[in-house]
Amino acid sequence: MFEIDAIEIIGFIAAFLTTSAFVPQVYKTWKTKNVEAISLTMYLVMFTGVFLWLLYGIYMNSLSMLIANIITSSLILVLILLKIKYSKKE
Amino acid sequence: MFEIDAIEIIGFIAAFLTTSAFVPQVYKTWKTKNVEAISLTMYLVMFTGVFLWLLYGIYMNSLSMLIANIITSSLILVLILLKIKYSKKE
Repeated sequence: MFEIDAIEIIGFIAAFLTTSAFVPQVYKTWKTKNVEAISLTMYLVMFTGVFLWLLYGIYMNSLSMLIANIITSSLILVLILLKIKYSKKE
Repeated sequence: MFEIDAIEIIGFIAAFLTTSAFVPQVYKTWKTKNVEAISLTMYLVMFTGVFLWLLYGIYMNSLSMLIANIITSSLILVLILLKIKYSKKE
């Protein structure tokens, strides 16, 4: 189903870079528990968008899009759950 | 070269959602000129990643990836330029 060729390598590098960009935000929020600056609406919109990219990537037989969007949607989900958890306590 | 079918509609919705999520950040930074919380490294990494997704989308004949990544990379470029411009004045 999925094939790895030269263009897929570009996809994997792209996936690594755009996914990595999310990690510091997740780490910072996890550590500080400061969710004030996080917009729940923005992340819900982004989660829906990334989930649709995931469906799109599966249809396009794109392994890099599949992996990138599974990791990115998981990271966004963590941020959404942290936001909900720590907003309740205010 | 590019074809629009049912899966491309999902791509366009995904493109609209993930691109929209960036707009409030650009608007806020543009208005407030407050670039303190913006990580230049993060946005440079993200810009490179999105640029590679753009190349990938062109290769995959994906019109939704082409449009999404042109708009997203432009928005990230605006944030990078604002960061450089207003950091100098501090």
